[in-house]
Amino acid sequence: MTVIYNRVALIGLGLIASSMYWAIKRHGIAHDVTGFARTVETRETARTIGLCDHVYETPQEAARDADLVVLCVPVGAMGAVAKDISGVLKAGATLSDVGSVKQHVIQSVAEHVPRNVDFIPAHPLAGTEHSGPNAGFAELFENRWCMIVPFADSNACAVTRLRSFWEAMGSKTTTIDAEHHDLVLSVTSHVPHLIAYTMVGVADDLRRITDREVIDYSAAGFRDFTRIAASDPTMWRDIFLTNKDATLEVLGRFTEELFALQRAIRTGNGEHLHDYMTRTRTIRRGIIEAGQDTDAPDFGRGVVKR
Amino acid sequence: MTVIYNRVALIGLGLIASSMYWAIKRHGIAHDVTGFARTVETRETARTIGLCDHVYETPQEAARDADLVVLCVPVGAMGAVAKDISGVLKAGATLSDVGSVKQHVIQSVAEHVPRNVDFIPAHPLAGTEHSGPNAGFAELFENRWCMIVPFADSNACAVTRLRSFWEAMGSKTTTIDAEHHDLVLSVTSHVPHLIAYTMVGVADDLRRITDREVIDYSAAGFRDFTRIAASDPTMWRDIFLTNKDATLEVLGRFTEELFALQRAIRTGNGEHLHDYMTRTRTIRRGIIEAGQDTDAPDFGRGVVKR
Repeated sequence: MTVIYNRVALIGLGLIASSMYWAIKRHGIAHDVTGFARTVETRETARTIGLCDHVYETPQEAARDADLVVLCVPVGAMGAVAKDISGVLKAGATLSDVGSVKQHVIQSVAEHVPRNVDFIPAHPLAGTEHSGPNAGFAELFENRWCMIVPFADSNACAVTRLRSFWEAMGSKTTTIDAEHHDLVLSVTSHVPHLIAYTMVGVADDLRRITDREVIDYSAAGFRDFTRIAASDPTMWRDIFLTNKDATLEVLGRFTEELFALQRAIRTGNGEHLHDYMTRTRTIRRGIIEAGQDTDAPDFGRGVVKR
Repeated sequence: MTVIYNRVALIGLGLIASSMYWAIKRHGIAHDVTGFARTVETRETARTIGLCDHVYETPQEAARDADLVVLCVPVGAMGAVAKDISGVLKAGATLSDVGSVKQHVIQSVAEHVPRNVDFIPAHPLAGTEHSGPNAGFAELFENRWCMIVPFADSNACAVTRLRSFWEAMGSKTTTIDAEHHDLVLSVTSHVPHLIAYTMVGVADDLRRITDREVIDYSAAGFRDFTRIAASDPTMWRDIFLTNKDATLEVLGRFTEELFALQRAIRTGNGEHLHDYMTRTRTIRRGIIEAGQDTDAPDFGRGVVKR
């Protein structure tokens, strides 16, 4: 129970911000948390469920006097909201964000940051397929990585303080540069999401199969895909558009590999298929050993502790 | 606790057969269960863990005197094993299987079935990413579909009895024709698996990212893919090669859709992306309503009850 920032402002009140709020309160990380949401509906929900100590109608009111301001809006909206609040940021405050793409956020936000404010981008690798203020829970960040993306000339104290903030919410933290972040995330998250969306769309299109059949007989593979493909469309649209280069590069590699496997199927090359699938098993083993997942058999039977 | 078959023979002792054994015993569905496995190692494991009442060195010994013989080997091995046991099958016995592809199994098995034996293919839609005799558990089939694939001239009593057998193990059952089965499964299972394997392979290939990074930062999307891609390579090689036509057809649709989304990213067409991802959300909702999955947020945090 150590207060790391006196006042934290959460700009945008979706899954991530609401989880941050509950984690901050549970661990006593800030005295005071202000919040802003663009729509009346979200603000009303926040007030009803007690999300944030004060919910404001404008981002300026929420950000004023905050020691840490965290932008929790879709990546495509970061620049505009940074511009809106730039005039009210307190001297010595830290401005951060939780966007899934870092180069674009830096390009669109940095120009609006006053000289006496430390801008330190960040990205917690945590989420669920649910979105909105009601979807948050205090444990979301526990044992998950939060990537901190400082600049060469960032204030070291401010970076350390931001890391402590995320660690107090249960995260493991690391630093990474923005370009590499965007490539790593395109492989481990962005392209897998795009592929899952695509497969679910194909199932829906194939008219010889009824929706009922798709739904009733959704075996393991497909059920996992639908879970992914239920994620927030606005957030993901922005991710794909703003991490365009890495997404297109990894997609290119993906289709190249897929075509090789497709040819192996067409030509009956069982050895190629078997070798490929044997190799992919080892990555899975590494993930289990790294503690990022459990070895318990799942396939649609998962039960979640909140 | 109703005995449905006096003696059941399980040919092949992997995840499915071992789960069947534990379910049969738990619910008292057969007096006696015999088993055969090709390798000494699997037979020894089976004997050590008490899998099957009798484990035999040959499929003939296991199948002789059985009222129900279930082929539980990879799809590509079904024909050979059916040929091996065809001479010993008891008059009036039922021969079935658990293969994930039905047209090919029928083509390769049917010619070996004696006239006085009822051949009724089946496919339980259940599994985990683990394989082998140790991976089985009695609850695997609970609330999962088992597809029964009778022929136009199948013995109706034998079909009803086989359905009762699967229902006694906890499955829901339905009948479906072989061609349609193979198309439905290519969409809901086979192509999703191929895609997951591919994406995991791409991650491994991309040399600018270390394996450690892939593993540590495997966010939701990718972690689900690695789980799928850890499934048994021999089983899946056979599925892709034997359900070739449907797999290639669905893959064609998939790449067509993927290219359209790729173009939307390249040209910055956010509306197309947003519309597509909004549509895929509704399928997910259908799956939850159909009771095939839970609405609890998951993303790598699933905990499994065995």
